[in-house]
Amino acid sequence: MPSFLVSSSSSSSSRICSSIFNQIPNSVHSINPHLSTSKFQQHLSSNRVCLCLKSRSSCRSATTKAVLSEVPYQNQKYAKIGAESVGPISSAQLLQSVEFAAKTGAEVVMEAVNKPRNISYKGLTDLVTDTDKMSEASILSFVRKNFPDHLILGEEGGVIGDSASDYLWCIDPLDGTTNFAHGYPSFAVSVGVLFRGKPAAAAVVEFVGGYMCWNTRTFSAVAGGGAFCNGQKIHVSQTDNVERALLVTGFGYEHDDPWATNMYLFKEFTDISRGVRRLGAAAVDMCHVALGIVEAYWEYRLKPWDMAAGVLIVEEAGGAVSCMDGGKFTVFDRSLLVSNGVLHSKLLERIGPATEELKGKGIDFSLWYKPDDYNTEL
Amino acid sequence: MPSFLVSSSSSSSSRICSSIFNQIPNSVHSINPHLSTSKFQQHLSSNRVCLCLKSRSSCRSATTKAVLSEVPYQNQKYAKIGAESVGPISSAQLLQSVEFAAKTGAEVVMEAVNKPRNISYKGLTDLVTDTDKMSEASILSFVRKNFPDHLILGEEGGVIGDSASDYLWCIDPLDGTTNFAHGYPSFAVSVGVLFRGKPAAAAVVEFVGGYMCWNTRTFSAVAGGGAFCNGQKIHVSQTDNVERALLVTGFGYEHDDPWATNMYLFKEFTDISRGVRRLGAAAVDMCHVALGIVEAYWEYRLKPWDMAAGVLIVEEAGGAVSCMDGGKFTVFDRSLLVSNGVLHSKLLERIGPATEELKGKGIDFSLWYKPDDYNTEL
Repeated sequence: MPSFLVSSSSSSSSRICSSIFNQIPNSVHSINPHLSTSKFQQHLSSNRVCLCLKSRSSCRSATTKAVLSEVPYQNQKYAKIGAESVGPISSAQLLQSVEFAAKTGAEVVMEAVNKPRNISYKGLTDLVTDTDKMSEASILSFVRKNFPDHLILGEEGGVIGDSASDYLWCIDPLDGTTNFAHGYPSFAVSVGVLFRGKPAAAAVVEFVGGYMCWNTRTFSAVAGGGAFCNGQKIHVSQTDNVERALLVTGFGYEHDDPWATNMYLFKEFTDISRGVRRLGAAAVDMCHVALGIVEAYWEYRLKPWDMAAGVLIVEEAGGAVSCMDGGKFTVFDRSLLVSNGVLHSKLLERIGPATEELKGKGIDFSLWYKPDDYNTEL
Repeated sequence: MPSFLVSSSSSSSSRICSSIFNQIPNSVHSINPHLSTSKFQQHLSSNRVCLCLKSRSSCRSATTKAVLSEVPYQNQKYAKIGAESVGPISSAQLLQSVEFAAKTGAEVVMEAVNKPRNISYKGLTDLVTDTDKMSEASILSFVRKNFPDHLILGEEGGVIGDSASDYLWCIDPLDGTTNFAHGYPSFAVSVGVLFRGKPAAAAVVEFVGGYMCWNTRTFSAVAGGGAFCNGQKIHVSQTDNVERALLVTGFGYEHDDPWATNMYLFKEFTDISRGVRRLGAAAVDMCHVALGIVEAYWEYRLKPWDMAAGVLIVEEAGGAVSCMDGGKFTVFDRSLLVSNGVLHSKLLERIGPATEELKGKGIDFSLWYKPDDYNTEL
């Protein structure tokens, strides 16, 4: 059994957080037009990555069944999120590179499972371990050596490299750190490469099993080239009604209005579907949609490194990707719904209005963060 | 990728359900003193296993923080639930037999993973597959051949054997059928043997991993002899505060007042802990408590076959077991809290009052069902 060495190091978490905030452009307006400069400064000093506009509140009903029929999601089409071109690097090379990068991090993580963890805290329940940092360092080392002119956004290290690059590597060196710290499957290493802002290649190494039987499986995708699990082509499920759907969602560390709204959605969908799983690792949840073992996943308050790989894997497996209001998605946004496609509009009949209500309160889910000067075609 | 052959066979599920109701004693009062005979007959005709006293309702706040300090759980001790004696069969033989029984069922389940499932329905979202039935048949065959005078309670087949026996085998041939049907880990085969009504030996074979990497690990325990994972001794975690705890709960198929109350508890504990997982297999969740990867698990509306094995594995791993009101637990009850022990009373400060409130509405969680004439020392 693992034992845990725990240290609450606010100074180290301060360094980690500030490294990413240093990259946020000076114009607050470009990030979130509803957030005043003073509030933004106040937020920075609170030592959290999230943009928290509201204090936590109890769950309020955000929509009613009577409203649903008025919402025109049924015939909506969802824009492709994958890159039209992967740029001058060939698809094969990019896929091979992103898989190698993720597996490099995964080797570090596998070395650490079942061993004591040195845990520190970004927040009361937001953990970071030495393994997160070592995994990211190993991935960074690979990317910088092989693609020295590419831009990199890492969960722990922030932005590194040339912002004039068309390529942006979004790295989550250990997605599901809480699960990892407890030895609870699943967790993952997630690496997505954007070309001019759109997902071009992706790899997620999922850790499954647990004590006595740790194992991994690798999900990957390249824009226009399909999605794979351990090299085998995968596809989403064909389940077309909510009653026979298994769903999954996540709850972030910021217990604000979107958190409360998602509690409402969790209850609503637990009531009408085969169940809503809560596993705790966004990249893993998305790969499970791509694999067809759950029909959909949604969450507020995600970050680019959580999403960049998973969304491409879902889309290339035949699924749909949008924001939680049904709008066009980019990895710089802050809400996400992925599904098997055929269920997407039915899910939006409840998720969409609840999200619109949050937007009506002034909560902005769009363009949370994009590296300064990074050129996109969004 | 698995594909699913789905058939909604109400007549077959009717047969499955009636087989267990045929075993329910004639005196309704002995099952639930709050349920009138006419209501009980009405319930039987509704073709559900659960005793549903209330229609579904929206989540209501069942307690407040102000109330918590008045509840004297802090110094409460929780009665041992394991048998003092395992009877005339030696502990070693009983442990070996229960492990063999569970592995016999697991072989059937492993044969079926990744293959098309023939799904039928006990209710709108309550599945049963051919694999549930074939797994139970294989376990029954083993038990009846080796212990022809023992009583058996199976999820699918109901009560079989001699009710004058001191031994009762509680068999869940496929715990987490929804996960199995979707190829979503985890699910399990769970077999618990009671001696005079108390857990004497237990085995749970957990299916982990998934497509491309299915695997199993076997949890087992014998009363007074410790708990094991693949033969290695295991113990619960030592985490003693809720803020650093990872928790897990379940939501049953009956969307009644207890279901709504547990939505409230899910929200409350998601707010204050490292997270509440929702995995979908009670026996697995309990083994995860025993393994120390989560700190506690609770659920309303469980059945003896869900609990008989898991509770002993938790207790023998050093954990605590009680009803959700903090009261003494038997496997014939209908609410369960298992924890690492040191957190038990802290969790009950919220779970206990919420449960007391349900009891105040006339909802009875005690002695849901016990085979007629089965002699216990409860």
